[in-house]
Amino acid sequence: MLTDFGHRDPYVGVVRGVILAHCPDAVLVDLCHEIPPQDLDAAAFALRVSVPYFPKGTIFVCVVDPGVGSQRRILWARTARHQFLAPDNGLLSWVKDPFVEIRSIANRSLWLPEVSATFHGRDIFAPVAGRLAAGLKPDKLGPKMQYFQRFPFPEPQRCDRGVRGKILLIDRFGNAVTNLSPGHVASCNWVSCKGRRLPLRSHYAEAKPGEALALIGSSGYLELSVRNGDFSRAFKARPGDAVHAGN
Amino acid sequence: MLTDFGHRDPYVGVVRGVILAHCPDAVLVDLCHEIPPQDLDAAAFALRVSVPYFPKGTIFVCVVDPGVGSQRRILWARTARHQFLAPDNGLLSWVKDPFVEIRSIANRSLWLPEVSATFHGRDIFAPVAGRLAAGLKPDKLGPKMQYFQRFPFPEPQRCDRGVRGKILLIDRFGNAVTNLSPGHVASCNWVSCKGRRLPLRSHYAEAKPGEALALIGSSGYLELSVRNGDFSRAFKARPGDAVHAGN
Amino acid sequence: MLTDFGHRDPYVGVVRGVILAHCPDAVLVDLCHEIPPQDLDAAAFALRVSVPYFPKGTIFVCVVDPGVGSQRRILWARTARHQFLAPDNGLLSWVKDPFVEIRSIANRSLWLPEVSATFHGRDIFAPVAGRLAAGLKPDKLGPKMQYFQRFPFPEPQRCDRGVRGKILLIDRFGNAVTNLSPGHVASCNWVSCKGRRLPLRSHYAEAKPGEALALIGSSGYLELSVRNGDFSRAFKARPGDAVHAGN
Repeated sequence: MLTDFGHRDPYVGVVRGVILAHCPDAVLVDLCHEIPPQDLDAAAFALRVSVPYFPKGTIFVCVVDPGVGSQRRILWARTARHQFLAPDNGLLSWVKDPFVEIRSIANRSLWLPEVSATFHGRDIFAPVAGRLAAGLKPDKLGPKMQYFQRFPFPEPQRCDRGVRGKILLIDRFGNAVTNLSPGHVASCNWVSCKGRRLPLRSHYAEAKPGEALALIGSSGYLELSVRNGDFSRAFKARPGDAVHAGN
Repeated sequence: MLTDFGHRDPYVGVVRGVILAHCPDAVLVDLCHEIPPQDLDAAAFALRVSVPYFPKGTIFVCVVDPGVGSQRRILWARTARHQFLAPDNGLLSWVKDPFVEIRSIANRSLWLPEVSATFHGRDIFAPVAGRLAAGLKPDKLGPKMQYFQRFPFPEPQRCDRGVRGKILLIDRFGNAVTNLSPGHVASCNWVSCKGRRLPLRSHYAEAKPGEALALIGSSGYLELSVRNGDFSRAFKARPGDAVHAGN
Repeated sequence: MLTDFGHRDPYVGVVRGVILAHCPDAVLVDLCHEIPPQDLDAAAFALRVSVPYFPKGTIFVCVVDPGVGSQRRILWARTARHQFLAPDNGLLSWVKDPFVEIRSIANRSLWLPEVSATFHGRDIFAPVAGRLAAGLKPDKLGPKMQYFQRFPFPEPQRCDRGVRGKILLIDRFGNAVTNLSPGHVASCNWVSCKGRRLPLRSHYAEAKPGEALALIGSSGYLELSVRNGDFSRAFKARPGDAVHAGN
């Protein structure tokens, strides 16, 4: 489950209840529920970097859904290893594996009998996820689709001095995750952000406590950090801020 | 599990440990742990709107317990579909299904050997929940009770211009959930709150992004929202604020 | 699982995925993920007070790891009842049960094929935990160790007027948990903190709502509380603040 429902309300809890009501043996796994409200980029990036680590057969139930109650479709999609349920709003854009089958969740007999205007996570996603976990054949879900909404990954741009990327997100530790990949910085010997140069390192331990550095983080992208500190706070860095690398 | 323990401390975790120590096969489901400290209304409302979605046989372990360590009793109660453990403080007041059996958890041999003054969730609720999940007969729990503490649901009042309700809670998205039901607003064509009129809609998509609206939310009650925005922040709305509807 | 990963990012979620990929039947239990970033004391104390409540055979996966990517070792340790995975940074210092076997997780064939510089929770701890849960023999993990890093529990000091301790942590309810044990305060009739005397009580119910008190809390240590209130906010109390007790 990947949602922007947060932990403050019983929203995630009731989704769990509905899934279990349809599949008592389901193993429920929380990927993240603190995606900022309606932030499709954050959700799509979380999927991109997390999906490869999950076991074959996992059903990803993804509900970040600013268009809930509109005519947007709800998708089921399958790669060679995983299944996904998501609104057709671009949430699955950055999954790396190719999708081999896509369907619209159009079969209303699989939904809860009463569908609210605002909580399709509970009323549509959860019962469908539960039924899939319990063995429902995907061809019962609804018609096949050829296309669905995908937005391009924000690739860095070449520029005079090297490459220009940006901060994608700030994590709980204050690390700034960028869109620069190892390939982009392979020939670089500096990174700059917010007017300051940062050394490129391979491990935190190469910096002194309190020192800023750039390194390839666990997402596979360049991260800007302060060793045992909070880069975002120290540099007043925010998602969208520019990051340059060059040599 | 429904508690006000939050996620910051290991309190919920240790309750999980004790339940599993008494029933290794228990399926633990978090309904919500971020009920504001000691807020019985928020907890009772969360149960009211969530319980119907959970499978038959679910044991709800409800610990919002400002009277912990006092003489307040701990209840086990059963409806036709579910079981509940809760302090006798009104927490179960707004569950819609009728209770068919109520007992006081008086049998100390089911508690942990040492009971702290402040954490009955761990020392009483958890071992009793684990034993129930493992098949303990409810008649071992303690004596039957005829009555327990219930407080009335805060119904809206009829007034000159229609009906006067209030905001019950603000959710993570900034939506204001009120105590007005579809019946209360069926013949209304406006809703007002904080001196502003809001249009009554059936879906978010009927409002423009950034526009305020009122609609029947997922709880089955009227909610005040800003499409793709935060009503609570935009209107400085808080629980208890008055909401009028009329025509 | 005990970590400082928080809930805002998919870090805990992806650890869950990797464990399940290596042991589909694993029962995942969250002890706490909101340990303040890199706060070894808070994590060590959470283990100290929580471990005894968990079933025999539990594997504690503990990742609070300011030294990630340095040469610090990763430990597997076993008591008579439980197993632990933790960085060799003192995290296991305050576990009460004696460790009967300690190994260094040196066998790289048990790690993920690619190990990042910053996220050993996902790349080393999770696959090793999954394999242990699936029945891996501990002698495959790596060589036995005789010693590992332990720091002493911060014991209170005797002083003229009685005993001088300190606040270890503030919990979600604003209670201040101290390092004073029942033995330290057995012969005391007052406690003071931030220049104010607090009565020693055995239950919250002995104080009036809004009144401050000291009592032995659920951790087995003296806690400073305001009944149905927030001690930390009312007294501007913080971890490290001195607490005196005497008679």
